[in-house]
Amino acid sequence: MGMPMARNLVRAGHDVAAYNRTRSKADELAKDGARTADTPAAAAEGAEVVITMLADDHAVEDVVFGEDGFDDALAEGAVHVSMSTISVELSRMLADAHRTRGQRYVSAPVFGRPDAAEATKLRVVAAGAAEDIDLCRPLFAAMAQETFVAGTDPAAANVVKLAGNFLIASVIGALGEAFAFGRKQDVEADTLLEILGGSLLRGPIFENYAKQIAAQRYEPAGFKLKLGLKDMGLVLAAAGDAAVPMPIASALRDRLLTGVAQGHGDIDWSGAARLAAEAAGLDAD
Amino acid sequence: MGMPMARNLVRAGHDVAAYNRTRSKADELAKDGARTADTPAAAAEGAEVVITMLADDHAVEDVVFGEDGFDDALAEGAVHVSMSTISVELSRMLADAHRTRGQRYVSAPVFGRPDAAEATKLRVVAAGAAEDIDLCRPLFAAMAQETFVAGTDPAAANVVKLAGNFLIASVIGALGEAFAFGRKQDVEADTLLEILGGSLLRGPIFENYAKQIAAQRYEPAGFKLKLGLKDMGLVLAAAGDAAVPMPIASALRDRLLTGVAQGHGDIDWSGAARLAAEAAGLDAD
Amino acid sequence: MGMPMARNLVRAGHDVAAYNRTRSKADELAKDGARTADTPAAAAEGAEVVITMLADDHAVEDVVFGEDGFDDALAEGAVHVSMSTISVELSRMLADAHRTRGQRYVSAPVFGRPDAAEATKLRVVAAGAAEDIDLCRPLFAAMAQETFVAGTDPAAANVVKLAGNFLIASVIGALGEAFAFGRKQDVEADTLLEILGGSLLRGPIFENYAKQIAAQRYEPAGFKLKLGLKDMGLVLAAAGDAAVPMPIASALRDRLLTGVAQGHGDIDWSGAARLAAEAAGLDAD
Amino acid sequence: MGMPMARNLVRAGHDVAAYNRTRSKADELAKDGARTADTPAAAAEGAEVVITMLADDHAVEDVVFGEDGFDDALAEGAVHVSMSTISVELSRMLADAHRTRGQRYVSAPVFGRPDAAEATKLRVVAAGAAEDIDLCRPLFAAMAQETFVAGTDPAAANVVKLAGNFLIASVIGALGEAFAFGRKQDVEADTLLEILGGSLLRGPIFENYAKQIAAQRYEPAGFKLKLGLKDMGLVLAAAGDAAVPMPIASALRDRLLTGVAQGHGDIDWSGAARLAAEAAGLDAD
Repeated sequence: MGMPMARNLVRAGHDVAAYNRTRSKADELAKDGARTADTPAAAAEGAEVVITMLADDHAVEDVVFGEDGFDDALAEGAVHVSMSTISVELSRMLADAHRTRGQRYVSAPVFGRPDAAEATKLRVVAAGAAEDIDLCRPLFAAMAQETFVAGTDPAAANVVKLAGNFLIASVIGALGEAFAFGRKQDVEADTLLEILGGSLLRGPIFENYAKQIAAQRYEPAGFKLKLGLKDMGLVLAAAGDAAVPMPIASALRDRLLTGVAQGHGDIDWSGAARLAAEAAGLDAD
Repeated sequence: MGMPMARNLVRAGHDVAAYNRTRSKADELAKDGARTADTPAAAAEGAEVVITMLADDHAVEDVVFGEDGFDDALAEGAVHVSMSTISVELSRMLADAHRTRGQRYVSAPVFGRPDAAEATKLRVVAAGAAEDIDLCRPLFAAMAQETFVAGTDPAAANVVKLAGNFLIASVIGALGEAFAFGRKQDVEADTLLEILGGSLLRGPIFENYAKQIAAQRYEPAGFKLKLGLKDMGLVLAAAGDAAVPMPIASALRDRLLTGVAQGHGDIDWSGAARLAAEAAGLDAD
Repeated sequence: MGMPMARNLVRAGHDVAAYNRTRSKADELAKDGARTADTPAAAAEGAEVVITMLADDHAVEDVVFGEDGFDDALAEGAVHVSMSTISVELSRMLADAHRTRGQRYVSAPVFGRPDAAEATKLRVVAAGAAEDIDLCRPLFAAMAQETFVAGTDPAAANVVKLAGNFLIASVIGALGEAFAFGRKQDVEADTLLEILGGSLLRGPIFENYAKQIAAQRYEPAGFKLKLGLKDMGLVLAAAGDAAVPMPIASALRDRLLTGVAQGHGDIDWSGAARLAAEAAGLDAD
Repeated sequence: MGMPMARNLVRAGHDVAAYNRTRSKADELAKDGARTADTPAAAAEGAEVVITMLADDHAVEDVVFGEDGFDDALAEGAVHVSMSTISVELSRMLADAHRTRGQRYVSAPVFGRPDAAEATKLRVVAAGAAEDIDLCRPLFAAMAQETFVAGTDPAAANVVKLAGNFLIASVIGALGEAFAFGRKQDVEADTLLEILGGSLLRGPIFENYAKQIAAQRYEPAGFKLKLGLKDMGLVLAAAGDAAVPMPIASALRDRLLTGVAQGHGDIDWSGAARLAAEAAGLDAD
């Protein structure tokens, strides 16, 4: 994800210093005109804005607070924009840490897959102080088709992002059960798709996933099942901290966890439907 | 539901004999030009097509096989069109019973609430022999905006209808958890609605229900919570017979059952969201 | 089950007329001294007490209300003792039907497997009018080690029996998850069994099932997985009618349903643990 | 918990240096003959064995790795015995940390409530190198009635402890559903208790909890509902790391989380039964 986003920033004329743990990736960006940095701290040196787009909480903690982290390298008044899907808890912790150092923090996770990132079609959900968000708007405009503001508390953006991913997972999970229910009772997946697609199931999520599930096509992955599991973990962790029982989220986690346990972590997360079919004794394909 | 559907048939010029357990309802239709019948059997006498639109399996069994039922009154070659949401099992049983008597059977449940029925905006999901469905098309056209064919086995229409209601319930259930998740973490319902509505949650189901849930407006009921529970019962019964594990359906049933147990059976089924909020310790309003 | 129970009645000196759909089974009892009957009605003719011990609701309905059913053959004042695990709803219906005919009805399901029946080690849970139960006590004494009284409403016995089977299923289900949890983290099943068995897991249910699960020995079946599923269906049906949400029962049903869907309906219901292990990606054996 | 355990060590003649964040608690132990220490590091200074018995992972991390933590104060070759219920992950991390420093680590969580600790009736589940466990046996003997060995990998003891707590929670959760099921269908709790207690529900867990639940007596708490929730969180975290789907654990977490969300975190965890009753529309008492 980070690669096309950074490239779009370069193309929009921003001065970008790229850091990636895998050096060759940063080098690739250099061809597009980015500078490369040897460490997160070096990348942050003198920057107005540092953007992080990483795999998980651990990677973000490492890049910010680790040995070569940018926590002290980032100038006072400069902004850290965290765009990965991270935990609500870490987002709160980052807000505190940056405030303590006189730095600014904007939480700005995105909806959209890598192809949407390429096409500047991401949707940014931003939260933080209004002036900090305003400062970042030109950057968001270079990477996304739309920027939504979730509030002044940075963690709000993470809550919204996780709520959104949970809703997508719910649709996938429910479609998986519905198609298994149909197939096992001799209703062809295409028939179900056509009828429900022509009535109830309109809108982008339903359409994308219902087609994939009807076709039982789970590879290549647009978003890996194991990443979906990670996100359900983040949802349930935040729900636990805030004391919100979410039985559907629990059911989704159990389904995705079964997928990972059985070796399907790298198929698309719509492959939850494959697991539903297998649980019903249907052939996986 | 039956009332506006019957009225639309009369208006389209069909000769309608109306029977309702509550006589005054049939009388009301008489003002629109329907004849009234004292019993189901009397209504079926001489009819080409008998349409049933009733509360549940029990009511349908009563009207077909009960004391004044039309099972023997319906002429050979005449069609019974069952449009209520009934169990897959009863639909199979009706198909057999009518076949045995030389009668025809079309299963044709509908998507749409009473206001859609008024406005001829229902969607019919029909299944049965192609020529039987063709015979009914003018009737469906008088009541609905669209007719989908689910297959030649009548029960297929019930499977599709139940799969559809399950998907709607899943969306409601997931929205309920998502909004509780948001509210409990200080994200306003309107903010969540606006952001997710502007990106992921497009399409008719999401839009209708997300608005109701964000506004916490569950009365008057468009479709009662206790009817939603009934339908989840039909889904799980069919899933049990066909051996399809559906943990999300189970979670939805448990949620709706809590609503009925706590005295909320008559609010809209989107009130599942109210129960999710209460489980999270949030005020119901 | 019925066979050893009937044999114990004959041995205790009671005059028994045996009916079984499979004639040879009744004949076998004849060797022990029972008379045989050609129909349920013939068996009930002149009897003081009729005992039913059958596979499911359907079989009981058939034997009571079917073509050769004993509903009218049973004398006024005679007792129908229903000892199978049947639904709360059917038990209520039988109570009504017999009352209407001036007959008596005792609901008396049992705890114990066939080997317990052989050894006169069953436990009877009886409910009905006190004098009706008293009349049956000598019969229960011939078949069981203990008789408990659940109340004067016959359905109470079915509620208690289903609650008991649900608790056993819960223990099995929880053990299945616990052993998968242990094995997947390199704690040997025997170690877990020894430690927990030496502390928490004392008592008959835990001991029996924990040993089977630790040994992964699910055949031959003491009680088939598909019968366990049937009973969870009865639990959830009664819970639905009484509006009692039971998420653990729902989870157990989903697990057992997966077992039946995947072709394991005939292994012991402790095989729920095998399904838990497979879901965790562990070898089934 | 720590107080009676420490007292038993003193009484058995061991030289104990007590540290507690709340100084007065350490002072109280001083009356029994313990020395007091101002910091965890001071307590560990010169000790052969350091025992930690604390509220949660965070507290343990603090005492070991925090500002006054004993990580460097503990002598080479000395043993850290962790007896709290902590995460499998932290136990692994502690094993590594101590190994790195040439120290020894035994994981030894206990089964038993404070009254069992008073009465030297705890059960210790220990794991680690055999000679390290042997070194600690006299200490365990002073505090517990029995010591089980779970393996040489310290984390194994935590896995067993969490599996045990999960099984207890399952029994509580299932009893809660069963009693709601009974009460809602007019079977008195005492009747259910008597019948099932006389047959299936023998053994310590069932007996304790079934009595509490039948009596609807959830205060004072023997083990608080919010601590039960914490432990289900530890179970699900370990299960997530090891890829073990545990739908019953998920259902238990959701139930306990509802309790905490609705303000019942301080009642006994058997109060899960109260939540089951409320979900069924029954009076809480």
